Amino acid sequence: MNEFEKAYETFFPFWEELNDTDRNFLCRNSSLVHFEKAQMVHDNSGCAGLFIVKTGRLRLYMLSEDGKEITLYRLLPGEICMLSASCVLESITFDVFVEAEIPSECYMIAASAFSEVSARVPAARIYALETAVGRFSDVMWIMQQVVFMSMDKRLALFLLEDAGINENMTIVMTHEQIARHLGTAREVVSRMLKRFAGDGIVEVSRKGIKILDMKKLRNIAQ
Amino acid sequence: MNEFEKAYETFFPFWEELNDTDRNFLCRNSSLVHFEKAQMVHDNSGCAGLFIVKTGRLRLYMLSEDGKEITLYRLLPGEICMLSASCVLESITFDVFVEAEIPSECYMIAASAFSEVSARVPAARIYALETAVGRFSDVMWIMQQVVFMSMDKRLALFLLEDAGINENMTIVMTHEQIARHLGTAREVVSRMLKRFAGDGIVEVSRKGIKILDMKKLRNIAQ
Repeated sequence: MNEFEKAYETFFPFWEELNDTDRNFLCRNSSLVHFEKAQMVHDNSGCAGLFIVKTGRLRLYMLSEDGKEITLYRLLPGEICMLSASCVLESITFDVFVEAEIPSECYMIAASAFSEVSARVPAARIYALETAVGRFSDVMWIMQQVVFMSMDKRLALFLLEDAGINENMTIVMTHEQIARHLGTAREVVSRMLKRFAGDGIVEVSRKGIKILDMKKLRNIAQ
Repeated sequence: MNEFEKAYETFFPFWEELNDTDRNFLCRNSSLVHFEKAQMVHDNSGCAGLFIVKTGRLRLYMLSEDGKEITLYRLLPGEICMLSASCVLESITFDVFVEAEIPSECYMIAASAFSEVSARVPAARIYALETAVGRFSDVMWIMQQVVFMSMDKRLALFLLEDAGINENMTIVMTHEQIARHLGTAREVVSRMLKRFAGDGIVEVSRKGIKILDMKKLRNIAQ
C-alpha cells in the first residue's frame, strides 16, 4: 500500500465502496504537493484538483476585481479543499482563491480523475457535494459577521481564532493583513486596535498584536 | 396520476429512477400549501419539508438576533426551496428564514419522507445536495456585493432585479423594506435614493420608486 492509499483509506468515507481499479486510478492520479508560505494553491484560472492538507494550513478567500479580499475559512491538516475542484461540482459557479498560509504539504487528486470516479460511484459524488455544503455553513457564518456584526466584534473574533489556531497569544500579522482577512481597510483595523490597546486588551508592537486580556476580548466577541 | 405525481415527474430529474412504491410514498406525503403575502414559510424552529413554488414567490433571508435582515435570494415558480429542509441535509448547520413575498402556492414534501427516499436512492440525495450547492453560488454573489460593492451599486442592482422580477418600472416598496433586503439602515437607502432622484434616475413618491433612466441605473450597477 502506498502513501496515498494509506491516507485515503482513513480519509474518504466512501473508500471501501470503490473497487480496486478505481482505487488504483485515484492513487495513480495523485501527487504530494509542497507549497511555500503565501504560494497560490488555486486561482480562478484552472481546476487542478482537490487537495487534502497533510501539513500546514490553507486559506480560502474571495478577491474583488480591484484586489480587495475577505477570508472565508481556513483548512487545517486532515481537511479537504473541495472548492478548488469546482469543475467536479458543476453547480458551483463562483470563484474562490486558495493560498498556503504557512508552508504546507497536500495530497492532490487530479480533478479529472476524481470526476470520473464520482460519476461511477454515487457515494464519492455524495461525499464531494456534502463537503461543499458543509463549507456553505462556514461561509454563512462569515456572511452573518459581515452583515450583522460591528467591526470591533469581528476583529475580536478574528484575533481569538488566530490565537487559537496558532496556539500563540501574539498574532504575528500586519494591520494590512488583518484588514485583508476581514474585507476592510487598514485604517479601520488600526483605529480599532488602538482602541483595544487603550482599553488594555491588546498590546500593539512591531512584532504583532499581543492579547493581554483574554476575558475582555471574549466579551467583545460574544 | 394525481397533481403531485404530474408535477414531480417534470420537476425531479431523478423521478424515473424511483420505483412505484417510492413515488407513491412521496406523493402521499405531499400537500399543496397556500401562503398569504408576508406569511412565514420556514423559520429556524422546524424542518417541515421542501417546497416547490407552483405560483407566487418566496424570499430566503438571514435574520440577526436584533431583527436585522438580508435577502439571500428569491424563488420563482418552478424553483425548489431545499434549505428549508435542512434536516435532510445534515451538513447544513445555519438558519435561514423563508417568507412568501406575494401570495404563493407550493407543493410541500414532508422532510421525513424525502429523507427516507434519499437514503435509499442516491440520485435523490445527489439532486438535493446539488440544489443546495447551486444556492451556495447565489449566496456567494450576495457576499461579493456586501463585501466589495458600494451601497449605490447594490441599490441599483436591487432596483433592477425587482423591476425585472415584477416586470414593472415602479418598485412598490418602502425605504425600510429595501433596507431590510440589503441588510442596511433605512437612512442609508433614503439618502441614496435622494441622490438617484437628484440625478434624474428615479422618481420617489408615496407609490414607490419609479425608474426614469434605465441606462444610468445600469451604469451604476455595472
